Amino acid sequence: MCAVGSGPESIEREEQFATAGPTETLERIVEFFRGGERPSAIGIGSFGPVDVDPRSPTWGHVTTTPKPGWKGAAVAPILRDRLGVSIAFDQDVAAAALGEYRWGAGRNAPSLCYMTVGTGIGAGLLIDGQPWHGLIHPEPGHIRVPHDRARDPFPGACPMHGDCLEGLASGPALEQRWGAPGHELAGDHPAWELEAHYLALGVLSIVCVFSPERIVLGGGVMEQPGLLERVAVRLRELVGGYLATPLLDDGINDYLVSPALGDRAGVLGAIALAQAASDRAG
Amino acid sequence: MCAVGSGPESIEREEQFATAGPTETLERIVEFFRGGERPSAIGIGSFGPVDVDPRSPTWGHVTTTPKPGWKGAAVAPILRDRLGVSIAFDQDVAAAALGEYRWGAGRNAPSLCYMTVGTGIGAGLLIDGQPWHGLIHPEPGHIRVPHDRARDPFPGACPMHGDCLEGLASGPALEQRWGAPGHELAGDHPAWELEAHYLALGVLSIVCVFSPERIVLGGGVMEQPGLLERVAVRLRELVGGYLATPLLDDGINDYLVSPALGDRAGVLGAIALAQAASDRAG
Repeated sequence: MCAVGSGPESIEREEQFATAGPTETLERIVEFFRGGERPSAIGIGSFGPVDVDPRSPTWGHVTTTPKPGWKGAAVAPILRDRLGVSIAFDQDVAAAALGEYRWGAGRNAPSLCYMTVGTGIGAGLLIDGQPWHGLIHPEPGHIRVPHDRARDPFPGACPMHGDCLEGLASGPALEQRWGAPGHELAGDHPAWELEAHYLALGVLSIVCVFSPERIVLGGGVMEQPGLLERVAVRLRELVGGYLATPLLDDGINDYLVSPALGDRAGVLGAIALAQAASDRAG
Repeated sequence: MCAVGSGPESIEREEQFATAGPTETLERIVEFFRGGERPSAIGIGSFGPVDVDPRSPTWGHVTTTPKPGWKGAAVAPILRDRLGVSIAFDQDVAAAALGEYRWGAGRNAPSLCYMTVGTGIGAGLLIDGQPWHGLIHPEPGHIRVPHDRARDPFPGACPMHGDCLEGLASGPALEQRWGAPGHELAGDHPAWELEAHYLALGVLSIVCVFSPERIVLGGGVMEQPGLLERVAVRLRELVGGYLATPLLDDGINDYLVSPALGDRAGVLGAIALAQAASDRAG
């Protein structure tokens, strides 16, 4: 998704197209941005894993993805050189976190996690509205969670790790396990209790490691009505009163929340990234 | 452990005694600090969970511990009032992280995790040498990791969660599972391969969520020769090349390291906490 604008109420142009190989996709992005006034900066929220270290020779590249053709694609350097503008580059989930922080469900959260459950499972972390990267960037889809093979014999869908969190609870995992995509499964299908269980185990790791002050849980799978509430119930059970805060007890519905920007969090966050880059460039 | 000084080479006085109930223990601490010149500030690295939020009415209290008598103990406020000095208060593991960052194996790590494996499993996270707390503070001992009951029928030792990471891999878990404490188990005992497996699963969650630039793995259990290396081998297998950095591949022995200060990391970190509090107070 490409857009030009300065916030949710002021999108001047936008265009959406499916991701093909890198050459074709980057060419379409270049055409989009050449189709209007040159922007002061461009923010990119890319699928990952990506190199977000500005000191690295492979800054702005996609790194180890299994997506055909994209491994090592120099996304940000190519767009910078073709378009001649400053580029702010981060993961798609970090951009979505930033969008929700600026204009959505993450407002006023000193530390924030935006976790997405869709084709993959990822998360963006913000500290005072700045994406947190550390060594690489968060990749919570690849943690391992308990997998009771008696209850759930599905071996997992991750091509690299099998039954990591993403392998057990992403959209493709749901579809492979049950033979139908999530949106075709009834609200009382046992898929949802199992899905909530795995997602709560993943969220628990985020709570116990990073201890964010709010978690926004988005992505296509989370559009299932009632799923967020099921995850919250299970998370509260898993915490078991050990962490002394009402936000992980009675107040959990103020802690684990839905996105306010829906599937526009990413593109709006990319605009916020671009604004920060433009401000830095003066 | 109580000490007065300004760094590893300049400890003026120190005293160690077993933790009893809060009244008796805090009284001994008061006596220790009254036994010399009044320090400019005191840093406390306390067992947890603790309330480290300076805006909270229960700042400086131990919160939900199962330790008899300590639940709700007002450790920092009592010592501040009895001794009349500024108190910097944090978890024991955050203090240990700070000690290793200042004087040990965490030097020059922009982000650092100090994880301890002993009576419990905990971790302190630092960003640019400052303890990171977020909502509460990290509590990675209570994440859930895969537990293959066919391979390991031990139900787990955590009184709250059973087979959380701490319940499976703390010192007491080792002892209860095998009928002898870790230091009595031979180096080729199967205990160590299982222990390394669980610890690597826990470290993986830290890597995939917080993505620290270095991890120091300490605590009594980690004194077992060869255990750190086994954890590193297993961690590298679990990452499976997915995270594009040599530090999680060939370079893992520069990433996952032993403490340099041994069991003195905590008390030295508390001194560093006190120095920061003293600097802030001017």
